[in-house]
Amino acid sequence: MSESEQAQFDLIVVGGGSGGLAGAFRAAEHGARVALLEPSLLGGTCVNVGCVPKKAMWLAADIGAKLRMAQSLGFAVDAPPQQPCELDWPTFIVHRQRYIAGIHDSYRKRLDKAGIVVAPMRARLLDARTVECENGARMGAARILIATGGHAVKPAIPGAELGGTSDDFFQWTAAPKRVAIVGAGYIAVELAGVLQALGSQVELFARGQRLLEGFDHELTAQLADDYCQSGVRLHFGHAVAALEADGARVRVRGADGALGEAFDKVLFATGRKPNSAGLGLENAGVELDANGFVRIDELNATRVAGIDAVGDVTPDPPLTPVAIAAARRLMDRLYGGGSAKLDRNDIPTVVFAHPPIGKVGLTEDEARARWGDNLHIYRAGFRPMLYALAESPQRSLFKLVCVGQERRVVGIHLLGEAADEMLQGFAVALKRGITLDDLRDTVALHPTSAEEVVLMR
Amino acid sequence: MSESEQAQFDLIVVGGGSGGLAGAFRAAEHGARVALLEPSLLGGTCVNVGCVPKKAMWLAADIGAKLRMAQSLGFAVDAPPQQPCELDWPTFIVHRQRYIAGIHDSYRKRLDKAGIVVAPMRARLLDARTVECENGARMGAARILIATGGHAVKPAIPGAELGGTSDDFFQWTAAPKRVAIVGAGYIAVELAGVLQALGSQVELFARGQRLLEGFDHELTAQLADDYCQSGVRLHFGHAVAALEADGARVRVRGADGALGEAFDKVLFATGRKPNSAGLGLENAGVELDANGFVRIDELNATRVAGIDAVGDVTPDPPLTPVAIAAARRLMDRLYGGGSAKLDRNDIPTVVFAHPPIGKVGLTEDEARARWGDNLHIYRAGFRPMLYALAESPQRSLFKLVCVGQERRVVGIHLLGEAADEMLQGFAVALKRGITLDDLRDTVALHPTSAEEVVLMR
Repeated sequence: MSESEQAQFDLIVVGGGSGGLAGAFRAAEHGARVALLEPSLLGGTCVNVGCVPKKAMWLAADIGAKLRMAQSLGFAVDAPPQQPCELDWPTFIVHRQRYIAGIHDSYRKRLDKAGIVVAPMRARLLDARTVECENGARMGAARILIATGGHAVKPAIPGAELGGTSDDFFQWTAAPKRVAIVGAGYIAVELAGVLQALGSQVELFARGQRLLEGFDHELTAQLADDYCQSGVRLHFGHAVAALEADGARVRVRGADGALGEAFDKVLFATGRKPNSAGLGLENAGVELDANGFVRIDELNATRVAGIDAVGDVTPDPPLTPVAIAAARRLMDRLYGGGSAKLDRNDIPTVVFAHPPIGKVGLTEDEARARWGDNLHIYRAGFRPMLYALAESPQRSLFKLVCVGQERRVVGIHLLGEAADEMLQGFAVALKRGITLDDLRDTVALHPTSAEEVVLMR
Repeated sequence: MSESEQAQFDLIVVGGGSGGLAGAFRAAEHGARVALLEPSLLGGTCVNVGCVPKKAMWLAADIGAKLRMAQSLGFAVDAPPQQPCELDWPTFIVHRQRYIAGIHDSYRKRLDKAGIVVAPMRARLLDARTVECENGARMGAARILIATGGHAVKPAIPGAELGGTSDDFFQWTAAPKRVAIVGAGYIAVELAGVLQALGSQVELFARGQRLLEGFDHELTAQLADDYCQSGVRLHFGHAVAALEADGARVRVRGADGALGEAFDKVLFATGRKPNSAGLGLENAGVELDANGFVRIDELNATRVAGIDAVGDVTPDPPLTPVAIAAARRLMDRLYGGGSAKLDRNDIPTVVFAHPPIGKVGLTEDEARARWGDNLHIYRAGFRPMLYALAESPQRSLFKLVCVGQERRVVGIHLLGEAADEMLQGFAVALKRGITLDDLRDTVALHPTSAEEVVLMR
């Protein structure tokens, strides 16, 4: 096939998740002719089996928790005291999927308006300038952006097929009575919190001794307390060696050989892998690292001229806003004359636990490794007013990690009601560079939880 | 009475509200011998008839609104659709007053531990160093802090005695069927939102053409829309000339002479005045301004050596955190060798409307008066995910006011779910000094409302 027979674009984006879409839109804004290849649903993991449906379920779980508090506060709510209010999942899922369909619809309209050619099919690279779609059509472009994301994986243990992943969770239409969750990372913690709040009896099996490695240890200890209070059973130091069928139920066998009780469902939240296979990357000479991630430099360029990569297919932090920010800056540089690059320092992140937990900057342990004893730690532990009114035990814990005489703030850690919405502004401030005095000099907003951050002594 | 017969203190604090208490505690921390005079409840307006019970009622109203959403999301809630869930006020008020009693208790313990002498009585100044209590006892001190706060006032119109103020609201034990609220400031807006959400039919009578003078006009217009959507009837340009009894109910007569429908309750939220009378301030030579406020300089000093004033008895912004911050800095300077003074610029403030509205820095109008057309305005209007899921119309509106080529951020305005908790961090950032690029360079937290602030274009 001669080059003249191929469709010619400035940019082919392989993958229609958050990063790929953000890149395609930004490139088109700058006048580039763009093609987008996505065989599955637009929006990728985030919109379809990640952030969005996860947040929807978290909102439902949060409302469920509020209903229980409403009862004790004096509202006429028809549910047995101390029991989860019953959610009709099919009703809620209609709302959730309507919301997601609205996002798909909005994407399609924007793609159309931007003049981006969308091919809803698999594709592989033939070389650094040519892509072949599964129907045999070939497209050529000056540049290719790899944005194929990642996928959940199960561990290689006997009976793994008896368990599901977060993808399966989003297919459920009711809360199972008893659920085992394997893992202690953010997906495990989020699924455990949501399911417990929506009526499941949840047990979480963690190989290590704590939740959320990478978050501050004091906050994750408080979160573990909050989870225990809400009824989640946490099994630390419990490596899962196998799953075994027990009729329609499943038992978990530990590395010590002990066989546990039977669960209605088991979910693995033990890791995700990049979608880097089957794309023909080897044809173009694109390198992968030992974990299968596409190797990139700090500008998201692979070592092949004209091929870049963003998002979960790269070793960048697997966060939707990171993929989006990287893709936009890349396109601004390539087509808009910009020079900004993604700063990978001080990226804030929130886990939608119950309550949510967020951080920006360094944990105490990370800061101590760098500055030794030249640290000053400030903490505020309290019960937000709503929880105090309802005599609910859930506590908030905020923590500041400061360095040196001037108390430069290098880490802000928030656990508690509204921490998810509270962190963004503090992340801007930390990134701008602040000292403890900058916090203290800001007048508090009363009565809020957020004011505790500026009132720490 | 000779000086030796008088109790001698380093500091007498007249008034046990937030500012007085903060000053007393901080002075005692620095080793000062402190007496505190408070004839009424510790904590003043904020704890007893202001911020704290207001926030408690707001939380109840918010839970009520969430219950209605819960129904449409698929939760089994036993209430008629589209009707407010019924709150048993007496049950809730037990929780609210228990919470407040806990604060009183905590204050008493802290006062005791700090060795602060508390006299639960009225007092007046005899001179700049001597206070006489209502039982005749006299106390002498090197310094006196005036922190007597303010009180709600009714307008001087016929029938004003038929209406109440926010103080009366906090005595209610049920939601009246129909309520008129006179005023358009933050107390009027907060009371209207709470009562409507808890089942009253609320009408608000505003002399002017808008809500919340001093907040950004676009946000208050959106808030007015949200209030209308929730059923509040807003009467703008409607000056109230008189209240008239109609059996046990009350009618509002307008300045145009027209007599309106009958309400079960009428609340005035038309202003507050300083508690500066009857304190013997004239004996010490302390000056008041034309509105009765104690005149102070930027260090909170009156023109009488040794007498300072903080809080709502002064012309400072009538915000609890301002009174507290002023009192603490004052005591740090007087007894702790500090030099910090309260910066009255860029004080953030939040109104607990439904949804909450907050601001820090300048409104567009204020900025335009200063910089003319050298402004850049950015807006984000959206429906938070929970409201979209529940098909509730309530929208959020965020707005940035930026100046000049470098887009220096001089105003941040937030209206919407969680704006109350979101603003504090952005207030720190704005006060530190940021440009639009500082916001954009911060990675977003997804999916949140707060991320919209850093994603504005």
